[in-house]
Amino acid sequence: MIILVLNSGSSSVKYQLLDMRNRTLMASGMAERIGQSSGSIAHRSFPGTERERSFSREQEIPDHATALDLAVKLITDEKTGVIKDVSSIQGIGHRIVHGGEYFSAPTPVDDRVVEGIRAQIPLAPLHNPGGLAGIETAQRLMPGIANVAVFDTAFHQTMPEEAFRYAVPEWLYTELKIRRYGFHGTSHLFVAKECARFLHKDLAQTSCITVHLGNGCSMAAIRNGRCVDTSMGLTPLAGLVMGTRSGDVDPALHAFLAENKKLSIQEIDLLLNKQSGLLGLCGHSDMRDIHDRIAEGVEQARLALNIFCRRVTQYIGQYMAILENTQAICFTAGIGENDPRVRELSCATLGGLGVFLDRKRNLEAPRGRVREISTLQSRVKILVIPTNEELEIAVQTMQVLNGQS
Amino acid sequence: MIILVLNSGSSSVKYQLLDMRNRTLMASGMAERIGQSSGSIAHRSFPGTERERSFSREQEIPDHATALDLAVKLITDEKTGVIKDVSSIQGIGHRIVHGGEYFSAPTPVDDRVVEGIRAQIPLAPLHNPGGLAGIETAQRLMPGIANVAVFDTAFHQTMPEEAFRYAVPEWLYTELKIRRYGFHGTSHLFVAKECARFLHKDLAQTSCITVHLGNGCSMAAIRNGRCVDTSMGLTPLAGLVMGTRSGDVDPALHAFLAENKKLSIQEIDLLLNKQSGLLGLCGHSDMRDIHDRIAEGVEQARLALNIFCRRVTQYIGQYMAILENTQAICFTAGIGENDPRVRELSCATLGGLGVFLDRKRNLEAPRGRVREISTLQSRVKILVIPTNEELEIAVQTMQVLNGQS
Repeated sequence: MIILVLNSGSSSVKYQLLDMRNRTLMASGMAERIGQSSGSIAHRSFPGTERERSFSREQEIPDHATALDLAVKLITDEKTGVIKDVSSIQGIGHRIVHGGEYFSAPTPVDDRVVEGIRAQIPLAPLHNPGGLAGIETAQRLMPGIANVAVFDTAFHQTMPEEAFRYAVPEWLYTELKIRRYGFHGTSHLFVAKECARFLHKDLAQTSCITVHLGNGCSMAAIRNGRCVDTSMGLTPLAGLVMGTRSGDVDPALHAFLAENKKLSIQEIDLLLNKQSGLLGLCGHSDMRDIHDRIAEGVEQARLALNIFCRRVTQYIGQYMAILENTQAICFTAGIGENDPRVRELSCATLGGLGVFLDRKRNLEAPRGRVREISTLQSRVKILVIPTNEELEIAVQTMQVLNGQS
Repeated sequence: MIILVLNSGSSSVKYQLLDMRNRTLMASGMAERIGQSSGSIAHRSFPGTERERSFSREQEIPDHATALDLAVKLITDEKTGVIKDVSSIQGIGHRIVHGGEYFSAPTPVDDRVVEGIRAQIPLAPLHNPGGLAGIETAQRLMPGIANVAVFDTAFHQTMPEEAFRYAVPEWLYTELKIRRYGFHGTSHLFVAKECARFLHKDLAQTSCITVHLGNGCSMAAIRNGRCVDTSMGLTPLAGLVMGTRSGDVDPALHAFLAENKKLSIQEIDLLLNKQSGLLGLCGHSDMRDIHDRIAEGVEQARLALNIFCRRVTQYIGQYMAILENTQAICFTAGIGENDPRVRELSCATLGGLGVFLDRKRNLEAPRGRVREISTLQSRVKILVIPTNEELEIAVQTMQVLNGQS
């Protein structure tokens, strides 16, 4: 079964074509700056194999239809292509950011589902329109192929009400649907499954904390395979410190800034989303640059790293407090998989909770598969687990099409 | 040594007169609705003893000077009084809410200190002006008596920078002094000292988590007697769920409400401070009412209780994660001292962290002194510790006047 995975943003389309018989990547690519004067598309066939070929071009890409059309041409092209024509594709899995309370599982797309995704736009005004454009374009360009919507929020829909409700007036929830949703759900679920496999357990017997540290950062507390809490909230701003996002702050900060600097709510929101986090603390949003600055003795960079890791430590503690029986702490995504210093600092004070990182194991190079970095005495395993959201979307798409979901 | 403790709010003055030779309360009282048309004053002499006498009167109290003048008259009155005249008072301790980064210890009041307190008004516009009015009135009415300022923020000034800085642009800290300050410091310190005494340790050897659950709620992580983190932040809105305050929420909630309900920043701030918390969730801000509603089967009340306690659980976990060696968890203040159900729920899932509450001990009635409610196997003791902020203010005032601080 060949599955096309589409991740359509407001001005970009990322795609992967996966052969699900052996879970291999046949092709991947990305169209960027859609609707702007200078777009681009980059494509790779058989990435990471001897047969790999890349292709990239600058060109204007007026809309999502053009982007997807280009992608399909590259996939089926005689030179760059990996399949003869689109009829080889058995299903298209779409990453949709926000499913609200409406979607708690991957869903075959029909008109009602499209309307359901549209109804969540107030909750994700920057993201869901792109996802919808991807679906509508795919339906038009490849009318015979089934589409499945896979939601970034779905995995977190098992949270109990005391985890997802804020202590705010009830009408904010009943009328405006203000609650914790959480994001990165596909990654958290993929990592939890990998963790279960590593522990030789069923997912339903696995209780772990997944720590997704990438461009965006979030964590999930997973009890017996089901999410019971997560650090992002109504939006992806809450929780951990991120590249440019503040994560948690005093909710009176807004009124203080309005009073003392005459900033508007929109300016404050922009400040917290785009100028905060690691960038706000030390001028760098990329953790690799921060390590370079620390090596040069830049104090703000050291502080940014420490604040980032302390927040992770504290979320691990709070999730262990509700999970009761945490079997593993799983680091994943760009920073989580590749930054031993962040992992070490994040676990440095967890000894009192029975969590011990093995410094030597932690320093071993990433190997593209699950590895254990805790000591033998550690009551909780610490794992590094490469995430793969696109593969998980393809797996879920295939399961939906096979009627297994 | 006889110490007068003053807690001056914007429209109220609370006072206690303490005999520090035996740490007993000689008199206490409160003037309310200062500056309004219908004020009142209530006074008790020798409270809780055979000699107790109370007095209360409705009358207009135009300003803080009138309030303090009334209090002094009641304290020295032939019938209601406990001392002959004010010359018996050796010092006046003032509760001041916000010391900013300027004050990290109790301080004898002089002109520079008054200016220092005034300089923190932007950080506590509702609170510091009342405290200043109290100081200025005391200086005028009792010119010969030394005044000491005791700050609600002082105990938390030992937090490391990675605990007190938010992940926001650096200029918010350098220019506007936006950082975590924390409040209830006098209570947290008093309870930590009581905890140390109970454990037969020096305060400097004591690592504990203090859980102050009253009208306002906050927690502190204390390592070797020094505060290393606390749940309130720039303002008392952050952290735990409270009677009418939300505690932590997604910091993008403001922009969402502005966009979807056209609320102003001031309206949102009011909503989060006055209409949220327990009140927002179930219509009751008093935990005793909530227990009544739960007994009647009201689902929102049950949810409010669960959200309240889950937040406490999660803060315990995050503080255990940074403390490494937590010796005790100390519940204090109105709810913390008197509500066994809240304590039980807050500790219910902590077994994985070695924390076990003894349900029978927990249910025993409050006895006005420290008691242990954990099981013998619990690796961390759970204690109930009656707080006494006024006594701690008097102790600190006395130490300052004796040159011990």
